[in-house]
Amino acid sequence: MSKVFADISASLDGYVAGPDPNLEEPLGARGEDLHGWVFGLEAWRGPHGLDGGETNASSSVVEEKITRTGAVVMGRRMFSNGEGPWEDDPKAEGWWGDDPPFHVPVFVVTHHARETLPMKGGTTFNFVTDGIESAIEQARAAAGEKDVQIAGGASAIQQALAAGMLDEIQVSVAPLLLGGGTPLFSPGADGAFELDRVVDAPGVTHLRYRVQR
Amino acid sequence: MSKVFADISASLDGYVAGPDPNLEEPLGARGEDLHGWVFGLEAWRGPHGLDGGETNASSSVVEEKITRTGAVVMGRRMFSNGEGPWEDDPKAEGWWGDDPPFHVPVFVVTHHARETLPMKGGTTFNFVTDGIESAIEQARAAAGEKDVQIAGGASAIQQALAAGMLDEIQVSVAPLLLGGGTPLFSPGADGAFELDRVVDAPGVTHLRYRVQR
Repeated sequence: MSKVFADISASLDGYVAGPDPNLEEPLGARGEDLHGWVFGLEAWRGPHGLDGGETNASSSVVEEKITRTGAVVMGRRMFSNGEGPWEDDPKAEGWWGDDPPFHVPVFVVTHHARETLPMKGGTTFNFVTDGIESAIEQARAAAGEKDVQIAGGASAIQQALAAGMLDEIQVSVAPLLLGGGTPLFSPGADGAFELDRVVDAPGVTHLRYRVQR
Repeated sequence: MSKVFADISASLDGYVAGPDPNLEEPLGARGEDLHGWVFGLEAWRGPHGLDGGETNASSSVVEEKITRTGAVVMGRRMFSNGEGPWEDDPKAEGWWGDDPPFHVPVFVVTHHARETLPMKGGTTFNFVTDGIESAIEQARAAAGEKDVQIAGGASAIQQALAAGMLDEIQVSVAPLLLGGGTPLFSPGADGAFELDRVVDAPGVTHLRYRVQR
C-alpha cells in the first residue's frame, strides 16, 4: 500500500520559513538558507533544468523522494504565497514557471475553486476545496502504486498529521537558527514517532520517522 | 584551550521540557520521555549509583560528556525548580540527594546569594549572582584543562549563546512531539552552526554543532 509522507527542511530551532515571507522572499528572511544543502546537488539541478552539480550523501535522499512520489499535496501558500480570489493572485500559476519540477499530479488545498491547470512536463495542478483529507485521498488515487508527498507548507503537514493520515516524515535539519517564522510543528501538536533512518550529509541531517498511531 | 559546551535532549518540536513543570514533574508533562534513551544505559546508571544497564551507540556519547566535563554551569530552575529566597525553596539542596551525579564544581546562576554547598562525591554547588558570563568564567577556572558544560536549562544555554561564549552544542533529538513547554531556542535566537558529528542511536539522534562566530 502506498504511503503518505512529508519531507521538509527545517532550522535547528524548528522553522520551515523565516520571518516576513513575501513575493521577493517567499521563504521569509534567510529561509532560503534552509535549502542551501540542496541547490548544489546534481540530483536537484537536473529536475530543475540546470546543468552540473555535485553528488554527496544527500543525493540519494533527493533521488528517492522524486522516484517514490506519485502525487503531491500542498497548501495554497506553498503554491502561490497568495490567498483570496485567484484573479488577484500574482502567482496564480504557481512559483515554478511553465515546466514545474513535480512531473506528477499536484493537489493544491484552497478555499477558491478553479479548473485543473495542466503544465508542461507532466505536472497538473488540481485545486481541492474540501480539505486536506480529500486532497490526500485524491492524491492517493492518482499516485497508484507510488507514494503521496505532502510537500508543505507546515500547515498542510500539521493537518495531515492531526488527521492521522501521515505515515512518515523526514525532517532535513539545517545547521542554523532562524529565530522566528513558520514553525514546522505548532504548539499543541501531538505525536510519537519511531526513528526510521538518519542520513548524515554535508551541511544537513536527514531524520526520517515513522508516525506511530 | 578548554571549550564551553551544551548538551541537552529536545523533542522533535524543539522543547526541552513539557508543559506545567512542578515538583512532581520537574520536566513538565511527558518531559521525562525526552530522556527515555538514557535511563537504560549502563553508562548513565553507574554514575547515578544504579546497577546493570545496556550498552549501545549512545553509551560513548554519555561517557564522553562525563569525561570531558571539568565544571558545570546551570540555572536556578534546573538546580531546584524554585525561585526567590532559598529558605522558601523545598529543593534548596538540589534535585539529586546528598551524592549528586556531577562529581565536579557546579556553578548555579541565581539572584540569591548563598554560601558554597559541598556535597558527597566531589560535587560542590557554587552560587553565582552576577550572571552567566561570570559563572562561565568561574567554571572555566575550576575546570582546568577540561571543558565547561552548560547543563541547562534552555535559558542558560540561550544566554551563553547570546553572550558569544558557547563553543559547541549537542542536541539529542527524541522522536516525539511535546506540543508545548520550554523551547530550547526562544524566538529571536540567532546563530549559525557547523555540523560536527551525528550519532544515530536507538530512539535518539545526537546532533553536535560547532557555534560559528
